[in-house]
Amino acid sequence: MYKINWRPDKTHPMPLHLQIVGYIKEKITSNEWSVGAKLPSQRALAGLFAVNRSTIIAAMDELAAEGIIEGNTGGGTKIINNTWNLMNQTYNWNGYISSGNHQPNQMIVQQINEAESDPGMIRMGSCEPASELIPQEKIQSILKKLSVASQPLGYEEPRGSLFLREEICKYLETIGITANPSSVLITSGALQGLQLISLGLLHPNSTVYLEKPSYLYSLRTFQSFGMQLSGIPSEETGMNIKKLAEKNKNKKGSIVFTIPTFHNPTGTVMPLEKRKELIHFCEKEGLPIIEDDVYREIWFEDPPPPPLKSLDSSGLVLYVGGISKNLSPGLRIGWVVGPEPIITRLSDIKMQSDYGSSSLSQNVAAELFASGLYEAHNHNLRKKVKIRRDTALAALNEYFQKTATWNIPTGGYFIWLKLNRPISMYQLFVKALSRKVLIHPGDLYEYRSNQHIRISYSNASLDDIRQGIRILSELVEEQLT
Amino acid sequence: MYKINWRPDKTHPMPLHLQIVGYIKEKITSNEWSVGAKLPSQRALAGLFAVNRSTIIAAMDELAAEGIIEGNTGGGTKIINNTWNLMNQTYNWNGYISSGNHQPNQMIVQQINEAESDPGMIRMGSCEPASELIPQEKIQSILKKLSVASQPLGYEEPRGSLFLREEICKYLETIGITANPSSVLITSGALQGLQLISLGLLHPNSTVYLEKPSYLYSLRTFQSFGMQLSGIPSEETGMNIKKLAEKNKNKKGSIVFTIPTFHNPTGTVMPLEKRKELIHFCEKEGLPIIEDDVYREIWFEDPPPPPLKSLDSSGLVLYVGGISKNLSPGLRIGWVVGPEPIITRLSDIKMQSDYGSSSLSQNVAAELFASGLYEAHNHNLRKKVKIRRDTALAALNEYFQKTATWNIPTGGYFIWLKLNRPISMYQLFVKALSRKVLIHPGDLYEYRSNQHIRISYSNASLDDIRQGIRILSELVEEQLT
Repeated sequence: MYKINWRPDKTHPMPLHLQIVGYIKEKITSNEWSVGAKLPSQRALAGLFAVNRSTIIAAMDELAAEGIIEGNTGGGTKIINNTWNLMNQTYNWNGYISSGNHQPNQMIVQQINEAESDPGMIRMGSCEPASELIPQEKIQSILKKLSVASQPLGYEEPRGSLFLREEICKYLETIGITANPSSVLITSGALQGLQLISLGLLHPNSTVYLEKPSYLYSLRTFQSFGMQLSGIPSEETGMNIKKLAEKNKNKKGSIVFTIPTFHNPTGTVMPLEKRKELIHFCEKEGLPIIEDDVYREIWFEDPPPPPLKSLDSSGLVLYVGGISKNLSPGLRIGWVVGPEPIITRLSDIKMQSDYGSSSLSQNVAAELFASGLYEAHNHNLRKKVKIRRDTALAALNEYFQKTATWNIPTGGYFIWLKLNRPISMYQLFVKALSRKVLIHPGDLYEYRSNQHIRISYSNASLDDIRQGIRILSELVEEQLT
Repeated sequence: MYKINWRPDKTHPMPLHLQIVGYIKEKITSNEWSVGAKLPSQRALAGLFAVNRSTIIAAMDELAAEGIIEGNTGGGTKIINNTWNLMNQTYNWNGYISSGNHQPNQMIVQQINEAESDPGMIRMGSCEPASELIPQEKIQSILKKLSVASQPLGYEEPRGSLFLREEICKYLETIGITANPSSVLITSGALQGLQLISLGLLHPNSTVYLEKPSYLYSLRTFQSFGMQLSGIPSEETGMNIKKLAEKNKNKKGSIVFTIPTFHNPTGTVMPLEKRKELIHFCEKEGLPIIEDDVYREIWFEDPPPPPLKSLDSSGLVLYVGGISKNLSPGLRIGWVVGPEPIITRLSDIKMQSDYGSSSLSQNVAAELFASGLYEAHNHNLRKKVKIRRDTALAALNEYFQKTATWNIPTGGYFIWLKLNRPISMYQLFVKALSRKVLIHPGDLYEYRSNQHIRISYSNASLDDIRQGIRILSELVEEQLT
């Protein structure tokens, strides 16, 4: 039962026993190790993880303190709990014991967040568009318009500004989705849409099926509320539906999360036929779908296939979109489209969370759509981003020919670089940082992946993209030789 | 043990058994009825609530289905659970059983939300400032400025725009709070600050001590995550500290929530001496405080005493403020001020929730502070709101002399009207609605209060305030005679 093909990284600053705690918690969360099961003996675990027995004892103490395992005087240690709330940890406010978050990823995420604001950094991790990609002049022309004629900024309706929702419906029509304003909720970015869904529609122990790797692994939203992420192997055409069918045993409360268009991090696009197949399968199984479609407008040669939502006649798709990737992250405008009762439910929780999104941002976004500036901007954006992609691909051809393989994205911001052999990702991350190159190691998107890097070409300048890839290739070669 | 001095309202559209379910859940949440205790027999309960036994059976079935009680073949029914997640209810997405939210208040809140957008309504419930109170021209002048010179709208730092945080620190200095930008988190309104605190610092079963009545009772944020609200009797000077001391037995994970300045809904102001006493008590007990201070700038004669935060030398106060009440709700700008590690923790959760607040809103708010327009506006606002308060008080004197008593607020937006005798609040609410007057019945702010109405003078016009109070007095007299 306990296949362990991972060992803690002795060069990582996180103590070995906490790395092991993180590993075990992930196995339990993903249901690979189930509640009620007995763990191997301490001696056996020490062998499996290649650490001293004292390290195993420290890890077991930690897991017991968190109420996840229970030692039995008679026979061995049992898993007793698979839901713990990563967000709701007791905080050391009064000088008592601090209980930090033990997920190994989080330390890296914090280091990334700090490095993001270093102006000298070559940012090849971020999915934020470079400032040259944000249509600053268009936004300013809207501000000018609003400065002479706008309404007082009061609270909006629970679903958000009607004007904006109407404009979004017109836009959705152009990509094949028929929706009315009552089935649209305005959110503060697409991310908030995901949080509202996890708060309002799922419950602890819900299983979320998702592509492996997936952007969702880098968030803690779903896991923090006790949901289990169940990765489905993915291929060039996206999620493997046969594998999904095999996994989908416990139907109640399960949901599929997918990024079918310009997937984050792999860049793949699910073809139309497979989209139909997925909808058909989910209809049959009564399995709802969250479709994350935030990269749709960033295509290079041809528009991508229509969204799953456009093929959904039974209302099982919750569609999540937004303008943070292709227009302006700072406006914080996203949307969720779905059946009206679901949208009512989500808008109720949105009201309880922040009483609606910024009216000013909503007004600006609505004017951008209504004036045609949104469409015009996307047209320009595609050309600019294509040059960035080509620059990244050329640099990879020059520097990574011998050490890695990669996909050629037809849209979106990401190249999923696969090294020919595993390396220490943490070492690579730290060394790259010391040379002012910020990357997202693949294990942010797939637990313990040590062979992948997500290369983003959305943020760094063309020169920096070339230079960053060159520096990265040197560091990879250092480790591989 | 089971003192029941409440009966379901037979005129209310909610079925009797669901009203009883709501009542019992509140007793359990507030810890008045504890886990492990046996409930009285069905026959006894039927007597206590003055309903048929079949109604009790239906209520018990519902509670058992929610996992809150457990029937025992041997002897009676026991309370087995006191945490249930009101937000995370299974949603009827696939056509199965719908499990609505059973808290009686919520139906009224939904009716209120619908009525809010009826343009013919006299809105005496809302705490939203009337559009004449929002400095539209000042905001437009800022938009004009930003339309010629602003930065591209990218993501902000996790804590929010540094420019805005610096401006907020300067403002805080003027009310006695010394803070640096690292100890300030920008939120999407003060409400989001409360949600982040409940997600990030408290845990299920935390007890929140609060004034009774309190605005917090009208939210579901804390209860939804399993926290217990424990009301502390309040007097003209705010929370009774002696009563707080008596209740504060289970110290671990408890917190005080207070609105010491222009309390919502009672309008009371905690005097300086009592503020010192509260801080002293909480320091001694190691009890942290959430101070909600969103009405501070709306004073009529003299500025209120300094915030608790200004008296807090040990960092136990989390200060929540914002500009939604006194400047513009639509910008959605609030802040939390506290010890740096706490703010780091909250900003981490904020990033996971919505990746930061609108940069555009933050820029506008920062410019409003920096330009001095914020201060100038508050100066005007006070005069305008005072006229509104005086109008409301004059109308109450004219129409409610014989049927009610009330406080004279020295700031803020609320009069807490106390009727001389209890009435059916739901009847009053519905009848007022049919005459186009929207009020907030007191039981939104205090469970089952049937003798109070919160009168807000922030939104309706002067004429409407007079007319609304007149109509209300007619409806109250109808019920009292």
